Amino acid sequence: MGVIGLRILGIDPGYATVGFGIVDYQGMDFRTVEYGAILTPAHTDFGGRLAQIFADMNYILEHHTPQALAVEKLYFNTNKTTGIMVAEARGVILLAAAQHGVPVHEYTPLQVKSAVVGYGKAEKLQVMDMTRRILHLSQIPKPDDAADALALAICHGHCAKPDY
Amino acid sequence: MGVIGLRILGIDPGYATVGFGIVDYQGMDFRTVEYGAILTPAHTDFGGRLAQIFADMNYILEHHTPQALAVEKLYFNTNKTTGIMVAEARGVILLAAAQHGVPVHEYTPLQVKSAVVGYGKAEKLQVMDMTRRILHLSQIPKPDDAADALALAICHGHCAKPDY
Repeated sequence: MGVIGLRILGIDPGYATVGFGIVDYQGMDFRTVEYGAILTPAHTDFGGRLAQIFADMNYILEHHTPQALAVEKLYFNTNKTTGIMVAEARGVILLAAAQHGVPVHEYTPLQVKSAVVGYGKAEKLQVMDMTRRILHLSQIPKPDDAADALALAICHGHCAKPDY
Repeated sequence: MGVIGLRILGIDPGYATVGFGIVDYQGMDFRTVEYGAILTPAHTDFGGRLAQIFADMNYILEHHTPQALAVEKLYFNTNKTTGIMVAEARGVILLAAAQHGVPVHEYTPLQVKSAVVGYGKAEKLQVMDMTRRILHLSQIPKPDDAADALALAICHGHCAKPDY
């Protein structure tokens, strides 16, 4: 595994915007493969949004063939309706991963911050700037959802290290 | 529409058990087509459970070609982790419906009780027994998840009546 490295797909789940980031982790270093966001138009009905997320996830999984998927662990707090819709979209993302045989790893925001910045209470901008540095990028990745997804991928790289 | 009737698929969402019930609604009367439950084994990982729910939903949609799907509206209360997993499974169910072009209608437990028993505070057993009578069945459908799914289908039949 050392030579080939581990290709990780990070996903920041949502139903309007799904951030994604693909990195190769090899020899303690990261290479950025691609990042961006699946955007579903607001005028589409919810089922249509889920169908688009599923189709785009299938494309990403087939095109980039990641070996692991890192996704944010969900919690519900203030807006329960939005939370339900995010979880429904997340179900579709997990389905796509399962159908492609890609194992899923969940991380809390605290785990991501600790893994990327080394400090669980780091500010959002600190996490994004460290993500930029770790991935050798000249600018912080846009949109924020993509930066969050890349941070999740880095987190899995660090956490999964002992496994391979 | 009057002669052909409306074929309705009711779904009681879950990740361990998905209740389903298919009815034809025609001339103010219901005919039971099929009912049962998708059961996903506990030893399967969560992604595998979602994949099985998706496959079984696709089979039901293709085999019975319902024109409408009635599903329980989700709320979160005590067990948030279970709630998230149910919502994730529900996302997969909504995806299958969207991919088959079947419109989805959501109903609250209050709406179901009102539509089936005529009384929003009806007991669970009352709802089940009225479901049995309305569908001309000799016994209350088993498992409970299937009875709940059939009640949802009846609810949609009554609520959708003015539309066709």
